[in-house]
Amino acid sequence: MQAFDYLFHPRSIALIGATAKKEKVGYALLKNILDGGYKGKLFLVNPKYDEIEGLKVYKSIDEINEDIDLAIIAVPLKIVPEVMEELGKKGVKSAVVISAGGRETGEEGRRLEDEIVNIAKKYGIRFLGPNCFGFINTEINLNANFGSSMPIKGDTAFISQSGALFASILDWAINENIGFSYCVSIGNMADIEFGELIGYLSKKENVKRILIYMESLKNVESFAKNALNVTPKIPIIIAKAGRSEHGIKAAVSHTGAIAGKDFLYSALFKRTGCVRALSVEALFDLTEGFSKQPLPKGNRFVILTNAGGPGVLATDRLDMWNLGPAQLSSETMEKLNKVLPPVWSKNNPVDIIGDAPPERYRKALDILLEADDNDGIIGIMTPQFMTKPYETAVEIVNLLNEKKSDKPFYFSIIGGQKVEKARQFLEKNKVAVYETPEEAVDSMVLSWKYNYLKSLIEKDSVKIYKSSESKSLIKQYLKNGKTLLTEYETKKILQSYGIPINKTILLKTIGEINDLKINFPVVAKISSPDILHKTEAGGVILNIENKQQLKKAFEEIIENAKNYKKEARIEGVIVEEQVEKGFELIIGSARDKLFKQYLMFGFGGVYTEFVKDVSFDFPPLSKNFAYEMIKETKVYKLLKKGFRNIPPANIDKLAEVLIRVSSLIYENPQIEELDINPLIVSGDNIYAVDGRIKLNKKTEEHLILKL
Amino acid sequence: MQAFDYLFHPRSIALIGATAKKEKVGYALLKNILDGGYKGKLFLVNPKYDEIEGLKVYKSIDEINEDIDLAIIAVPLKIVPEVMEELGKKGVKSAVVISAGGRETGEEGRRLEDEIVNIAKKYGIRFLGPNCFGFINTEINLNANFGSSMPIKGDTAFISQSGALFASILDWAINENIGFSYCVSIGNMADIEFGELIGYLSKKENVKRILIYMESLKNVESFAKNALNVTPKIPIIIAKAGRSEHGIKAAVSHTGAIAGKDFLYSALFKRTGCVRALSVEALFDLTEGFSKQPLPKGNRFVILTNAGGPGVLATDRLDMWNLGPAQLSSETMEKLNKVLPPVWSKNNPVDIIGDAPPERYRKALDILLEADDNDGIIGIMTPQFMTKPYETAVEIVNLLNEKKSDKPFYFSIIGGQKVEKARQFLEKNKVAVYETPEEAVDSMVLSWKYNYLKSLIEKDSVKIYKSSESKSLIKQYLKNGKTLLTEYETKKILQSYGIPINKTILLKTIGEINDLKINFPVVAKISSPDILHKTEAGGVILNIENKQQLKKAFEEIIENAKNYKKEARIEGVIVEEQVEKGFELIIGSARDKLFKQYLMFGFGGVYTEFVKDVSFDFPPLSKNFAYEMIKETKVYKLLKKGFRNIPPANIDKLAEVLIRVSSLIYENPQIEELDINPLIVSGDNIYAVDGRIKLNKKTEEHLILKL
Repeated sequence: MQAFDYLFHPRSIALIGATAKKEKVGYALLKNILDGGYKGKLFLVNPKYDEIEGLKVYKSIDEINEDIDLAIIAVPLKIVPEVMEELGKKGVKSAVVISAGGRETGEEGRRLEDEIVNIAKKYGIRFLGPNCFGFINTEINLNANFGSSMPIKGDTAFISQSGALFASILDWAINENIGFSYCVSIGNMADIEFGELIGYLSKKENVKRILIYMESLKNVESFAKNALNVTPKIPIIIAKAGRSEHGIKAAVSHTGAIAGKDFLYSALFKRTGCVRALSVEALFDLTEGFSKQPLPKGNRFVILTNAGGPGVLATDRLDMWNLGPAQLSSETMEKLNKVLPPVWSKNNPVDIIGDAPPERYRKALDILLEADDNDGIIGIMTPQFMTKPYETAVEIVNLLNEKKSDKPFYFSIIGGQKVEKARQFLEKNKVAVYETPEEAVDSMVLSWKYNYLKSLIEKDSVKIYKSSESKSLIKQYLKNGKTLLTEYETKKILQSYGIPINKTILLKTIGEINDLKINFPVVAKISSPDILHKTEAGGVILNIENKQQLKKAFEEIIENAKNYKKEARIEGVIVEEQVEKGFELIIGSARDKLFKQYLMFGFGGVYTEFVKDVSFDFPPLSKNFAYEMIKETKVYKLLKKGFRNIPPANIDKLAEVLIRVSSLIYENPQIEELDINPLIVSGDNIYAVDGRIKLNKKTEEHLILKL
Repeated sequence: MQAFDYLFHPRSIALIGATAKKEKVGYALLKNILDGGYKGKLFLVNPKYDEIEGLKVYKSIDEINEDIDLAIIAVPLKIVPEVMEELGKKGVKSAVVISAGGRETGEEGRRLEDEIVNIAKKYGIRFLGPNCFGFINTEINLNANFGSSMPIKGDTAFISQSGALFASILDWAINENIGFSYCVSIGNMADIEFGELIGYLSKKENVKRILIYMESLKNVESFAKNALNVTPKIPIIIAKAGRSEHGIKAAVSHTGAIAGKDFLYSALFKRTGCVRALSVEALFDLTEGFSKQPLPKGNRFVILTNAGGPGVLATDRLDMWNLGPAQLSSETMEKLNKVLPPVWSKNNPVDIIGDAPPERYRKALDILLEADDNDGIIGIMTPQFMTKPYETAVEIVNLLNEKKSDKPFYFSIIGGQKVEKARQFLEKNKVAVYETPEEAVDSMVLSWKYNYLKSLIEKDSVKIYKSSESKSLIKQYLKNGKTLLTEYETKKILQSYGIPINKTILLKTIGEINDLKINFPVVAKISSPDILHKTEAGGVILNIENKQQLKKAFEEIIENAKNYKKEARIEGVIVEEQVEKGFELIIGSARDKLFKQYLMFGFGGVYTEFVKDVSFDFPPLSKNFAYEMIKETKVYKLLKKGFRNIPPANIDKLAEVLIRVSSLIYENPQIEELDINPLIVSGDNIYAVDGRIKLNKKTEEHLILKL
């Protein structure tokens, strides 16, 4: 038996802190275990009782003469270290620490948590919590949580980092008849974290998908590794709170965690094939589609409706995802013309008109299922005067059963009593049913997204470029205590990784200009480790046409620099070939406490932070995800088509540059920050025109997230 | 009696096309009228019957010897002109044309509609439809629609442009016990449109708000005028479909209307004080808050929760609206410290911890209601182990009843059976209850938005600048067949309206340079009506430092222009003072078929269309809405604070420039397009540096939307 099996599939449980006081958590846990119908052995422990609810109560763990697989601990956290010791001595292998009062309350709580972790480690005890609501395993009828009664059995696992939401969602789910295999309140994650938990749950036959409400990760690497193993098999769908700056602040004060930047969570989910839901409710909307229908193979979706208005709403929603409705082929159009009345919309949305009888729905759906011009169908039914909702539902179910198509059909049914019977029939018969067109569209798009990310991950490759020259240069800089590299030094390093730069030469003296080999026009810039804002210092001169002008510029720049900052160490003037107009992009890297080094790509120039059109990923960047980083930005559309006088960018070459920057970071995690801005791109021409590197002295922080 | 009173409050109805065939619309209408309990007189008309459901049937309208207030017409549209004639002769004053087959089916249908309109006009008949589901007036128990049974009585009016959604929403609303005073399916709006209808409904005592599902307007002016009268009294909440390009296409094909640009709908709603809901469901979320709680006086919102997670979700959602949570004053903090346990969040969200008893909720809410550091409170309750949902609800209701605060309290309760009783109690007692924190936040923000727009409208003023010089210039240009004005000509016009430009002089010959009075450095540009892309033609030279360089530039530009386009008419070279760095903004105007001239303001420069940070409004721009146009953009944040070396912009001066541009357009609607790009802004310095005007020859199109 695995450690996690003791926890989630215990043959015997000790409930420590069992009580007869009904307002106490220890009573609620007891009641839920008993009501749930758990068939294993249950031992109650509390020195103050002899008997509770007709069950014998043990004074201590010692007293129990049988093996205990799982201890559920509902005593004040201060006592938990002591309890953990006893459990260890007894040979108990797993525990759930319900008790609050850990690091969410401050320093003292954090210390207490650490102590508990150390004791548990000593004895090899794995535990959930502290500060959690417990868990539910419906397969063995074990309801070991104090917040909610037992949901029905199902094949969905649900993990919540908020105990309150855990209880609320279960309360709601019981009303809605939503089934689960496992429900886990993960608490403070002092020991068991998301990573191992998803790894374990994904191996269970009755876990077909994992839903997560997340506020923060603790061990990103463990999550990433496990997720990468899980998502090729089953989907992980995550609602993460703390999207906004204020939300992150609220989450941090709530959980006492280092939260990490929200956009890096999104990037990590992408890179590991997890789907991010727009809201907590959307977790369950997605489950509807994932559990009942095949995954869409592409993102060409067709809307089949008996009402124009909701068709428009669905179209608007597709657009929110930057998707237009699929273009119907002339073949499909012809077929539809034959079975639909002449006033049908003759376009996607396929509006089969308000008086559509069940047969018309069937015929149109049949054609769309057969057509190869779409990857999924979003049906809409409104109960109009001629509509027969139930009969339509029967026709649809019959058709889907006959066809056994590998194309998904999601159905949005708007209304109340008139459609209730149809809704129930469809749900029973594995049609994904939604209340609004928007929910159906969101779910369809995200189920495609899952399939898409999976395909990226499955056929991916990583290539890492190396440069021993740069490695030793960086070592040398750090040895000399130099952390801010000049443009010239940065470009040397970029070049050593095959990142194209415009020709850049450092002139130490004016005399070197005579022998200079460079194509005019050029730009001259001051080179000084003490001058960061070169333009402000009068240290940049553009449009230099010849050597004579360059000499004048050299003198002017040196003079300006001296006036600007007397004590500035001046290395000379760098001269670079002036690059013709192109897209101004940015490639950067920075560090996050939680996620370590990360990469950024997007719209560059002065307004890059205002425009905020950037994508993120982690080194080492793989081939597929290098392209994905580019495609995620809005500027990609311009890059592909060209803009004004700028020709379309060579995307392959651009992806290659991204991979080379990724290699540079991966090989040299001492780089704390890197900025190439602008990277000027025009057709095949790509040049890192300006750049800077900041190194980090602290060797203990030179870490790369291992994906 | 007003014409609309005959329609919505008829003392007698003729149902033309009444039938005993249960699958026909004429039967459904009859059944609904009878089931609804209408107390007025009902006459059935159909030559094929003597009696239906025990009621006498008349062969024709003529046969009825009494006055008829309203005719409901459910015969094929082809026969409707004939019916309308008969109604006119009989002196009937109002009608509902249920029949489909109008302009939504194409040219023939459009012709038929026009014919019906003409006949109705001749006799002074006002009518709803065609292609509509009818209407409901709950006050007189009149259910004159064929799609839905009778909802309960309430004080909300609902207008739907989609018949299918009308029926679906009513079916759903009946299940949810949502009350209405009027429900109107507005159909093709051949006669009665949104404008007059909202004007009429708003005057009814039992209409406290108007909800609209809209796909397109027909008469924008009528809508605008009526909305401006209505929104200072009661809110108009609109879910408009067709947000996206594809959505608009779908809407147009569905309704056969000229849809107009979606962003202009948003601008019109703003300008007329209407609130745009994010979805159809949100109409009803908003109704919850509007109908039960006071309007927030500002947008400083505080979140009061017993659970961290949902508090984070609410914070994220506030951020989506660009609002941070309100900053709690030290006074409020102190008061909360006194009544809350030491581990409370000590921040907004005010997390009163999972074990919060009803009294703690009450005390915290009391403090927040009294505090002047917030304008509204979003409560969150999750059913945790110690939570007493019902008792908490009672405490809250008692407190709210005692306080009679003019501050809104919205309550999000997450869960199922455990919170059901609390939810029902709260709803009965005028607390606005929501299922998710997001819905509560959206509704709170939009109810503030309504109040905010109302205040803008109430204290607004319009000033219109005039220039007879420009008026005659434009007249002259059009007379000469000139529609594309050069930069020089455009700037002359801008200047006459007091819009600041950088000094710009047209040099016809090189000789004029000797006497030129201008501050160097200058820019020289080709001036030719035949060269649009000046830079491409080699027609722009920057950084000219003195007259000698200018002479050289003059020659070069003329030569380049000749090489670029042999036959180009060259007016000379314009010389302008080079403007120092600043924000590059855009002010523009264009025309829309439906909305006429409109104004645009936002982030300018080359990437203006990519960045898409622009706001819209209509001339004549008022003072408040000029500021609003600026504040709506994201670049406003930079303008206010300054950016890099650019000092903060003088917003007052900028608003004044917008009003002057608006005046220019308002006074000269012959301007089809105007572009000032860039408008360079740096502190107090504002210059229209480049611009162009396109005139429109067609005098019949020189219209301004009258607000």
